[in-house]
Amino acid sequence: MIRQEVVVMVIGIGRIGRIHAGNLARMQKVKVRYIVDIDMDAVTQYIREFGLSATQPLHFDDISRAYNDVEVNSAIICTPTTSHEQHVINALNAGKNVMCEKPLAFSLESISRCYEIAREKDLHLYCAFNRRFDPQIRSAWMDKEKIAGNLKSIKVTSRDMPRNSIEYLKISGGMSIDQCIHDVDLIRWFAQENPTTVYSLGHAFFDDIRKIGDVDQLYVTMQFGDGTMGHVDANREAVYGYDHRCEIFGDKGMIVCENKRELSTQQYTEAGNIAPAVIKDNMKRFEDSYWEEMVHFVNVIRRKEKIAVKSRDTLWATLICEASRQSLVTKQPIRMDEFAAKVFPKLLDMLP
Amino acid sequence: MIRQEVVVMVIGIGRIGRIHAGNLARMQKVKVRYIVDIDMDAVTQYIREFGLSATQPLHFDDISRAYNDVEVNSAIICTPTTSHEQHVINALNAGKNVMCEKPLAFSLESISRCYEIAREKDLHLYCAFNRRFDPQIRSAWMDKEKIAGNLKSIKVTSRDMPRNSIEYLKISGGMSIDQCIHDVDLIRWFAQENPTTVYSLGHAFFDDIRKIGDVDQLYVTMQFGDGTMGHVDANREAVYGYDHRCEIFGDKGMIVCENKRELSTQQYTEAGNIAPAVIKDNMKRFEDSYWEEMVHFVNVIRRKEKIAVKSRDTLWATLICEASRQSLVTKQPIRMDEFAAKVFPKLLDMLP
Amino acid sequence: MIRQEVVVMVIGIGRIGRIHAGNLARMQKVKVRYIVDIDMDAVTQYIREFGLSATQPLHFDDISRAYNDVEVNSAIICTPTTSHEQHVINALNAGKNVMCEKPLAFSLESISRCYEIAREKDLHLYCAFNRRFDPQIRSAWMDKEKIAGNLKSIKVTSRDMPRNSIEYLKISGGMSIDQCIHDVDLIRWFAQENPTTVYSLGHAFFDDIRKIGDVDQLYVTMQFGDGTMGHVDANREAVYGYDHRCEIFGDKGMIVCENKRELSTQQYTEAGNIAPAVIKDNMKRFEDSYWEEMVHFVNVIRRKEKIAVKSRDTLWATLICEASRQSLVTKQPIRMDEFAAKVFPKLLDMLP
Amino acid sequence: MIRQEVVVMVIGIGRIGRIHAGNLARMQKVKVRYIVDIDMDAVTQYIREFGLSATQPLHFDDISRAYNDVEVNSAIICTPTTSHEQHVINALNAGKNVMCEKPLAFSLESISRCYEIAREKDLHLYCAFNRRFDPQIRSAWMDKEKIAGNLKSIKVTSRDMPRNSIEYLKISGGMSIDQCIHDVDLIRWFAQENPTTVYSLGHAFFDDIRKIGDVDQLYVTMQFGDGTMGHVDANREAVYGYDHRCEIFGDKGMIVCENKRELSTQQYTEAGNIAPAVIKDNMKRFEDSYWEEMVHFVNVIRRKEKIAVKSRDTLWATLICEASRQSLVTKQPIRMDEFAAKVFPKLLDMLP
Repeated sequence: MIRQEVVVMVIGIGRIGRIHAGNLARMQKVKVRYIVDIDMDAVTQYIREFGLSATQPLHFDDISRAYNDVEVNSAIICTPTTSHEQHVINALNAGKNVMCEKPLAFSLESISRCYEIAREKDLHLYCAFNRRFDPQIRSAWMDKEKIAGNLKSIKVTSRDMPRNSIEYLKISGGMSIDQCIHDVDLIRWFAQENPTTVYSLGHAFFDDIRKIGDVDQLYVTMQFGDGTMGHVDANREAVYGYDHRCEIFGDKGMIVCENKRELSTQQYTEAGNIAPAVIKDNMKRFEDSYWEEMVHFVNVIRRKEKIAVKSRDTLWATLICEASRQSLVTKQPIRMDEFAAKVFPKLLDMLP
Repeated sequence: MIRQEVVVMVIGIGRIGRIHAGNLARMQKVKVRYIVDIDMDAVTQYIREFGLSATQPLHFDDISRAYNDVEVNSAIICTPTTSHEQHVINALNAGKNVMCEKPLAFSLESISRCYEIAREKDLHLYCAFNRRFDPQIRSAWMDKEKIAGNLKSIKVTSRDMPRNSIEYLKISGGMSIDQCIHDVDLIRWFAQENPTTVYSLGHAFFDDIRKIGDVDQLYVTMQFGDGTMGHVDANREAVYGYDHRCEIFGDKGMIVCENKRELSTQQYTEAGNIAPAVIKDNMKRFEDSYWEEMVHFVNVIRRKEKIAVKSRDTLWATLICEASRQSLVTKQPIRMDEFAAKVFPKLLDMLP
Repeated sequence: MIRQEVVVMVIGIGRIGRIHAGNLARMQKVKVRYIVDIDMDAVTQYIREFGLSATQPLHFDDISRAYNDVEVNSAIICTPTTSHEQHVINALNAGKNVMCEKPLAFSLESISRCYEIAREKDLHLYCAFNRRFDPQIRSAWMDKEKIAGNLKSIKVTSRDMPRNSIEYLKISGGMSIDQCIHDVDLIRWFAQENPTTVYSLGHAFFDDIRKIGDVDQLYVTMQFGDGTMGHVDANREAVYGYDHRCEIFGDKGMIVCENKRELSTQQYTEAGNIAPAVIKDNMKRFEDSYWEEMVHFVNVIRRKEKIAVKSRDTLWATLICEASRQSLVTKQPIRMDEFAAKVFPKLLDMLP
Repeated sequence: MIRQEVVVMVIGIGRIGRIHAGNLARMQKVKVRYIVDIDMDAVTQYIREFGLSATQPLHFDDISRAYNDVEVNSAIICTPTTSHEQHVINALNAGKNVMCEKPLAFSLESISRCYEIAREKDLHLYCAFNRRFDPQIRSAWMDKEKIAGNLKSIKVTSRDMPRNSIEYLKISGGMSIDQCIHDVDLIRWFAQENPTTVYSLGHAFFDDIRKIGDVDQLYVTMQFGDGTMGHVDANREAVYGYDHRCEIFGDKGMIVCENKRELSTQQYTEAGNIAPAVIKDNMKRFEDSYWEEMVHFVNVIRRKEKIAVKSRDTLWATLICEASRQSLVTKQPIRMDEFAAKVFPKLLDMLP
């Protein structure tokens, strides 16, 4: 069987761009044809280091060359979030399938428009909710019914490490969406429903974060129509390591995805017993999920798998995060039917 | 040094009464003078089995004999909750120090009145919040500042096993208070503050529980004045065992009190790796805490320790549980200053 | 059903005597009639502290009073090892069932003679191999066939804490037997066979131990007739806690009895992750096994259970330890058939 | 700083050859110029799959083309063990640095001769003791003195999965060396000494293995000059997964390298608690160590690191394995000074 060749352009060669380009370069019958950035030195150095002899460096000003290359069938967008929407639209209009880091755009209207263009062009638009592809979480998902049964409580602990710079946080869109959209998506995914109520508590323990009007500790509490509850406990900094755990509980039992440790080595001394450290770096913590989400995207393009993250997933996760942000302001629970009707009525036809 | 003799009467010889009587019998310079119950066979059998040759069985109808015995300086009340208040008042009026399982009474007014009587009589009234004395939780408390620093998030998972009978649940006072008052007390204790806001989500997954108007899955979310948040995730039945875990998170780190396991044995087979089961029985799970809370009570009577659970602890834990119950009805967060002003203004002078 | 009353005399109220007397005092229908020691203050204080109002203190010089008390049907011997043999013989001759800490005596001949007296008198003589009753090890024993199948390797790690005083070690009989007889017995018990070969390596890392001609680190390697192998790794001091672990491996899988921890609390800090300490005190580590072995003894006297530790178990464990000691001298493996023929031929008729 | 280009030829593209070639292809400034095998289809398919556009496939008959290519400075030998020696000698004579899987050759004389050729040609000859590079074991090595102090006991459990075919086992050289040389090397490496005594116990539980005169369960016990002891417990098949654990114990404490698990997910059900499975595949278990040992080799060629596995390491590990095999025959401990004097006297000048 001949695998269809996947030819990609990677836009932006920052931290996540390097990971995606590296993963694509390791896949069979996948070509990274172009890497586009404004920093040509970074691009050429990356190409040289990874020995990507068939990859062409391209300045943003010349991006149309890549768009016009008919062999390129997909674009991976890894630029800062402020430019996501424009790149998504341009790439779709150029006939490329698109994978883009969250958020696709800053408003529900804009995100929805992106999906509409994709639909018109019969292209895939894939929002990279990578945590769904983490092997721990994936195994919880697979064993969900057998082990946990009908779910009653779904909890995510999500603490970042290291803390982002205040410069990043200023343009991040706020903790409710920037950090928590992944966790909110996980809970909705496990619940297999849309929430009826969302309530949030937030606080800024860091002065610089309070000054920009954001929070650094956040609870998001949800309830679903069948009574199932979800809870996100998020923090911008856990000094002991990147802390990401999930727990699903139901009538048959419980599955807990614990943190991954650097090693499996135990030390025993007079002073006590030292267990190996939690993985500190979030890129390392989720390296498997970055690989798996890209394998999925490539398989989608090859028509071997159906796309796992659909427009309604992206839109609903965004809607919940906006409700969470609203709840921080009003200090009230948000009824999701009323909220959707007000901010994005189209979603009501899209359930679930 | 001569230890002061502690002479007790135990009222009620059900499950918890047997544990308390047994623990007291193992302590030095402590005498269980009377065991009072309506079931004289149960009492005499218990006395015979444990070889408590110096203990007199007493029918409830003759309880005044114990009250009139001036050598008895304390009463341990282990009867069904509906009779707590009356026994507390009688024992205090008879000049006995009192230890009583929660709740002391069914209303804040009544609880407060019990404490007033104790104050007037210069006696100790001790509400048995035993979880505070669990060695896991106690160690978390001791290392709180060193390891966790300033707290930001305090979480308790609290799942019962086995499920209580519907007969018990009917007269339990409801899940918000019957099961969760311990957990609510823990969070408030760790926060060292009173909450400003309480919000709850509940659902009845069991038909028989829904029919009596109660819930079996409950979230209680709190926020404190300094921004710290607390979360209780409670359920009436975890099929895998009595599940009680705490997590405190702060700027320096995190402490997690995991479940205790029956054994420390690991089994490895072709089918997978089997870890030892979580302790199933809540009496066994907390057997250490029952011992420690009684040691504390005896030490308080001997003036060797100051009482750890004060009237404001009992009253505030009860107030929070009532707010939690109210939040289930209104589906709104409860502002605790307004709520206290309305239901029990005295507490406002008592903070924290 | 009426339980037969068990009336005991405890000889020696040192560390282990206090544990045994305390456990007996907590059992139903069991009376500790006498506690015998040369230190009458220790005895009376113990009796007072534990409120053993029915127990009589007795000086060693008056021990015959207890022996002559026909109601006493068992003696628990907890004296220093040098006097075990004499007490065992006297107690048996006085018609008492006997439980005695290991070793019953210092030679195979003497141990065998003790069992002969017991047989003649139709009394139980019970050598306290308590580790067989540890719940971890007991669960491994119960699941042995289901989980591990046919055994191929049986390993015990056995490290003491704290180190014994040199005074104790001088009269201990040597590490091969004093510390390792328990572990050797465990391996032979799991193998359900007698070993064909025993080989040991020893070394004294401590100067004072080398000077008394003993070792403080010891390997005992055994092979059984069906090819199964056993290994003991013993040390006189593990600074991190009392370290006792077993591993049984077979064609179906493996069971590992891990160390017990003080708590189930995990601490996470920037510096790393601290797991709870291993239980430091060997009395605490094995407190369950002391209880269970005594329950078994009481049940044996009541004819509710068959005695679990038989004369051949005690004699063979002793023989293996003597072979192990011999191997340290000759630096050769010991063939157990030849060794038994030489040092105690009777055992050859007793296999397995 | 310019990294020196490393240009390699990989000889043999079986299981381990594919791993090494893949790792080299991912390194910067490293070129896989040739892959040599008799199965040209396998080579070309591999090259195509991994997109190694700069790699030339080569039939064994044409291997001299690679040897004559002066740009190639290293050869990675991944052929079946019977041909190792010839390839090592040819590659060294062609002026290439050589990395070869163990054993370099089947006799101490032959191994020694290979190292002599390397010395004469001033080339590196690197025997791939990959376990030394496993991150768990490496971390134990780094913290050895701080945590464990002066070592007293070093133990390795080493159980294979899946069982090798009888065809492989027939030509493997026997369990003592084929499976255990890695573990023996680890113990000698941690002891930082040569053993004075080696004693082994073996048994064939599998009929087919017994018929070829080999064993499938093996204990190797060693003692070192300072009293430290080492123990290998090896088995040809653990049905629950590839089981490789180390434990080092000393006067300060203990370090235990536990097995790695597939996931960090825990499942809790009524039937019990299921922990994630041990990694089943030995290639996956040691994938990190394959990467790290290759990074080391490349760094050695670039003169950035001194070679970690020296001729005396390979020779001594082989000598110990031969002594272990001899001990199985004689059923006696082997004195290593006598044994070395008899089978390979040169080693006596090489200590330690």
